[in-house]
Amino acid sequence: MTLNILDKVNKPEDLKSLSIAEMNLLAEEIRKLILTKVNATGGHLGPNLGIVEATIALHYVFSSPADKIVFDVSHQCYPHKILTGRKEGFTNPEKYLKYTGYTAPEESPHDLFKVGHTSTSVSLAAGLAKGRDLRGGKENVIALIGDGSLSGGEAFEGLDNAAVLGSNIIIIVNDNDMSIAKNHGGLYNNLKILRDTNGKAECNFFKSLGFEYHYIDDGHDIQKLIKTFEAVKDINHPVLIHMHTIKGKGFEAAELDKEHYHWIVPGELDKKEEKAAAAEDYGSITIDYIEKKYRQDSSVIAISPATPAVSGFTNEFRNKAGIHYTDVGIAEEHAVAFASGIAKNGGKPVLAVMSSFIQRTYDQLSQDLALNNNPATILVFWGSISGADATHLTMFDIPLICNIPNIVYLAPTTKEEYLRMLDWSVVQNSYPVVIRVPCGEVISTGIADATDYSILNKYKTEEQGSDVAILGLGNFFNLGKKVKKALADKLGINATLINPRFITGIDEELLASLKTNHRVVITLEDGILDGGFGEKIARFYGNSDMKVLNFGAKKEFPDRVPLEELYERYHLTPELIVEDTKACL
Amino acid sequence: MTLNILDKVNKPEDLKSLSIAEMNLLAEEIRKLILTKVNATGGHLGPNLGIVEATIALHYVFSSPADKIVFDVSHQCYPHKILTGRKEGFTNPEKYLKYTGYTAPEESPHDLFKVGHTSTSVSLAAGLAKGRDLRGGKENVIALIGDGSLSGGEAFEGLDNAAVLGSNIIIIVNDNDMSIAKNHGGLYNNLKILRDTNGKAECNFFKSLGFEYHYIDDGHDIQKLIKTFEAVKDINHPVLIHMHTIKGKGFEAAELDKEHYHWIVPGELDKKEEKAAAAEDYGSITIDYIEKKYRQDSSVIAISPATPAVSGFTNEFRNKAGIHYTDVGIAEEHAVAFASGIAKNGGKPVLAVMSSFIQRTYDQLSQDLALNNNPATILVFWGSISGADATHLTMFDIPLICNIPNIVYLAPTTKEEYLRMLDWSVVQNSYPVVIRVPCGEVISTGIADATDYSILNKYKTEEQGSDVAILGLGNFFNLGKKVKKALADKLGINATLINPRFITGIDEELLASLKTNHRVVITLEDGILDGGFGEKIARFYGNSDMKVLNFGAKKEFPDRVPLEELYERYHLTPELIVEDTKACL
Repeated sequence: MTLNILDKVNKPEDLKSLSIAEMNLLAEEIRKLILTKVNATGGHLGPNLGIVEATIALHYVFSSPADKIVFDVSHQCYPHKILTGRKEGFTNPEKYLKYTGYTAPEESPHDLFKVGHTSTSVSLAAGLAKGRDLRGGKENVIALIGDGSLSGGEAFEGLDNAAVLGSNIIIIVNDNDMSIAKNHGGLYNNLKILRDTNGKAECNFFKSLGFEYHYIDDGHDIQKLIKTFEAVKDINHPVLIHMHTIKGKGFEAAELDKEHYHWIVPGELDKKEEKAAAAEDYGSITIDYIEKKYRQDSSVIAISPATPAVSGFTNEFRNKAGIHYTDVGIAEEHAVAFASGIAKNGGKPVLAVMSSFIQRTYDQLSQDLALNNNPATILVFWGSISGADATHLTMFDIPLICNIPNIVYLAPTTKEEYLRMLDWSVVQNSYPVVIRVPCGEVISTGIADATDYSILNKYKTEEQGSDVAILGLGNFFNLGKKVKKALADKLGINATLINPRFITGIDEELLASLKTNHRVVITLEDGILDGGFGEKIARFYGNSDMKVLNFGAKKEFPDRVPLEELYERYHLTPELIVEDTKACL
Repeated sequence: MTLNILDKVNKPEDLKSLSIAEMNLLAEEIRKLILTKVNATGGHLGPNLGIVEATIALHYVFSSPADKIVFDVSHQCYPHKILTGRKEGFTNPEKYLKYTGYTAPEESPHDLFKVGHTSTSVSLAAGLAKGRDLRGGKENVIALIGDGSLSGGEAFEGLDNAAVLGSNIIIIVNDNDMSIAKNHGGLYNNLKILRDTNGKAECNFFKSLGFEYHYIDDGHDIQKLIKTFEAVKDINHPVLIHMHTIKGKGFEAAELDKEHYHWIVPGELDKKEEKAAAAEDYGSITIDYIEKKYRQDSSVIAISPATPAVSGFTNEFRNKAGIHYTDVGIAEEHAVAFASGIAKNGGKPVLAVMSSFIQRTYDQLSQDLALNNNPATILVFWGSISGADATHLTMFDIPLICNIPNIVYLAPTTKEEYLRMLDWSVVQNSYPVVIRVPCGEVISTGIADATDYSILNKYKTEEQGSDVAILGLGNFFNLGKKVKKALADKLGINATLINPRFITGIDEELLASLKTNHRVVITLEDGILDGGFGEKIARFYGNSDMKVLNFGAKKEFPDRVPLEELYERYHLTPELIVEDTKACL
């Protein structure tokens, strides 16, 4: 690839000697690099294509890292990485995985925060600005936030406070009329009015908060961007720049289908044909159930906080479901309280959230939902130990949810259990229920589950043995099976295998009965140990002779550590578990 | 007390036959009742005095419980309780404590939710409206939210979504220009502009979100209120009524000092003189430290999310501190991210939050702060088991915080330890630190603590013994002392007494050493057991012969249960602990 301009740009200062024409060429070079690299490794495409010119203009006008730029969500930081000394991560296939897809302070002083959840940039930037003021600094502080992130409560709290900061803070709203999926909420009508009036409409959300407001109609016009950025540089009060861009800019397919090309898998751009119908997964199982159910009961409604793909809510499902589906935008707190209100007034809400994002709503789970004991259903998707970025770990949901009173948190191990639990939850009126949807390949027994889950906290003994009992929770029931086999093979022990099913309660009767002919209880959970399921079992047996071994993840933020390595680290292989067990027999 | 009108009003329908003049008299009667009752029992005064007329008008126009009114925070529901069959709780001193100070569905069908945290009403009401639409209902759904609650992110998420609900929802903003303390944030300037222009200003926060907007300049004029409420009754789309009221209306002292009379203690109104200077408490210790510290280091800043009184941040302190103090309004999420940003840019933030409200910011603690490992200090006040309302329990902060990686959560037991930990935290640059400020009477040893807390997870053996080791965490170290004495008195055991100090880590060396001459380890924590400190100790000893007994609260939402009763229930008395210990020796 010819990189005539980029070859000369190794740090942000190198931009300052370029002409506008050269910067436009540079934008094209960066765009091509991003397309090639993201197609090779997978990653965020649309957000990065849309922010190329603005990033060039930012680094042309401001002086990072003295001036501080905070990227909201930071999945639009690829051009920034290319311009701040990390272009090898995009030009050299061998270095493609060297840098993360998010800002990472350990990589570069140009990155201020490790960020992957949305709506945080304004508050973080306000903090940087306040820190600067306290120590008498003079640098510019800039927050770059996408319109989709504005719906998150933290962003509003940040804007409301940034507006009265009384000193330099520059907030750039990158308005591409899209969240991950389509935007939802009244605010977006205002953004449209502002776009339609070239920023001139009197009724202006940002002005209502007190911001000095600037509008850029074409966020891909480097000259306009530079002019506006220069006008606000070193300003002594809060200012907001509303900039209109096109998500996926410069790549037609991404401009046309913004949601699809938000994030792509490796090789996506090489595909010539329509994808074959996907195999069954827990997303398709969920929408099949919901479609069937709302035909029987018109009060059923599926809810997504801007992440329908996470739960398999396809476009087809969304269109077909009509009033039985709603996307509340990035607004997890609202989503939970909303579900609680629906359940209180006779509706049957099913809210689907990714494990990593359920973290955004603890108090609503506790106060709005659990304290009121309203029978809403929440599905937590992808709850598991994973090799993901540290910003998107999905292993904290058990401690987050299972220590809240009243909530029934369930861990199905098969398709049949999942469907039975889901239907029980939707039909019952006694509890808020959260289900940790299984991860990975669908395991089906082919035999419908007939359990009455209204009898709470009844664990299921799948195979009766002695000496050692294995409690394999949810995803890790399968690991439990393997441990049972390894214990038989290596130690000649016929272990008992138990499927706890309930994360939030102890089956005291069953656990007490194990004391008669078991010496060791092993707990396996696909999440962190601290505050989780296993520790409760350890507490239960604390006053007895039973040995308890808890297996799960350590309390840490692993960052893109391969799953196999984590399993080794946490002793989550049958071999290591048998070794640990042997040591305490 | 003569209650000519109220005597005739036993249910909301009884209002419908009253004249405006009679309703005005009724307002005065209700106001007197509230003053008398709240002065006797303590409670929220200003918010209730300010909402009397609006509540009468609401129940005159709408038909509760068919029409559904959601009270934000619900500390302004006293007039509503008086008008919905619970006036005995205000007229009869023997019934003063029969009803809670918040809406409570178990008391009355007129109360929809148990609510005590702010900013939730719009989302909850949006859920009620959606539930109604799904089942084809026709009732009005009304959310009554105070201006102070608007700064909370959940309120914004709710407004943004309610605006596009497409069916009946009536949001009433009770604008009294006050939160608990003074309001902070850009939005409040817009409310002022709207008040100053009689609601006519074009730049209108609510209109920008798409609401049909109505303004009521005098929220104590029953006729105007009724007229506006009647105009929006049965409306088929979202509408927002901005109503100007006076907090503390009708009681001069409360009108003049709105913060002081927001909530009063029993007998407050009878006091003739200025209060004597308060005795030392952990609030005064904290502000003494902060004042001293910011004189040494100008980058120190204390932060409160609208609850300065909780942490003893007096008016005097706030005025004196200047740039070293900031109130971010009800915006806990912003507060944590803001503190992280300040710490990142060289400042020394000390954020003070009540245990119950730290719940409102899990994801910011995890992502914005802990993942970025910025050295901010957070003080959690009032973390303990208590006899409070179920909405304001303060016993969930340990599981909430201690299972997040990177955070150092400390539990001081004395004034000296607290000051040493606080100073260590402010000076160090390695970790986000949270301190669980001790509750209750200040315990002082008189001897400065010289511990180096940068050596993490070192527990302190206060008294060496054998057989039984007691780990008395934070507030419960003192209980540990009593248990030690009781074990000596009743069982002749000379127990080891340990002050763990670190909630977030295990002192593996010390715990392992206990195995040599101890058979039982007792953990005592002033919070719920599930996901807390003791369970980690039980996990540690799981593969050994050590017996572990965890003492703390059960996972439940006790509602105004006297502390003594809870201590009995949870076996948190020296006698019960000795009994349980004896059973496993």
